Amino acid sequence: MELVIRDLFAEDIDRGFLETLTALAEVRLRPREAVAVFQKRLRSGVLTYVALDGDRVVGTASLLVEQKFIHGGGAVGHVEDVAVHPDYQHRGIGTALVNHTLTQARQRGCYKVILNCFDSLIPFYLRMGFRHHDACLRIDL
Amino acid sequence: MELVIRDLFAEDIDRGFLETLTALAEVRLRPREAVAVFQKRLRSGVLTYVALDGDRVVGTASLLVEQKFIHGGGAVGHVEDVAVHPDYQHRGIGTALVNHTLTQARQRGCYKVILNCFDSLIPFYLRMGFRHHDACLRIDL
Repeated sequence: MELVIRDLFAEDIDRGFLETLTALAEVRLRPREAVAVFQKRLRSGVLTYVALDGDRVVGTASLLVEQKFIHGGGAVGHVEDVAVHPDYQHRGIGTALVNHTLTQARQRGCYKVILNCFDSLIPFYLRMGFRHHDACLRIDL
Repeated sequence: MELVIRDLFAEDIDRGFLETLTALAEVRLRPREAVAVFQKRLRSGVLTYVALDGDRVVGTASLLVEQKFIHGGGAVGHVEDVAVHPDYQHRGIGTALVNHTLTQARQRGCYKVILNCFDSLIPFYLRMGFRHHDACLRIDL
């Protein structure tokens, strides 16, 4: 398998992208609806990366770059929605995607990257050099 | 004190906005630089709210609305950089700002709002209806 990681294109959406995301959570989007979502994300600057085996999407990760007023106007990267297709797990694709995202965040001037993850994934991220940060809270609307 | 909460305007920046943010972290931005940061934030859709006592900024909170592919293309709100000026703390301004942010997130179709906070602020957010979520990790670049 020769893995390529690059930005998501609209054409990737029905080449395994939505199926890959179901490894993370339910998707419930038809490809046409997903293209509209993709356009909204592009407008707000959300960066979506994909890992490809040939022309098949086998992994994805996203990056939001948040420009802060604090810390001298520094930028913070938020890693979101890291997913690897069930048929392709445990082959280093998640690690490659997160490393790609960190490189992109660094190039965009981020001084740190943060992410929220299930407890079961903490060891994976600690091995990559992440450390525990603040508490993470949620409220349903 | 009659508190008004509204969107940040560029004119607010040297009316206590940067001083208020120093309650949260170092800022190290001159007002002119902060205006440039504000413009970058507007372009990427980051919403910045301020609480005003007259024309003086005494509190702030920010909201990023992240359009997801998962959960049927739902949106997630990220609350960031909640700060109250040291002279105005313990008067309900933080609560009013977070409630305003939640209302705005609801109006923008968010199905949940998440935030990261110092451990010392967990009781404040739990009282507002938040609950513990995933782990939060960081890496410095």
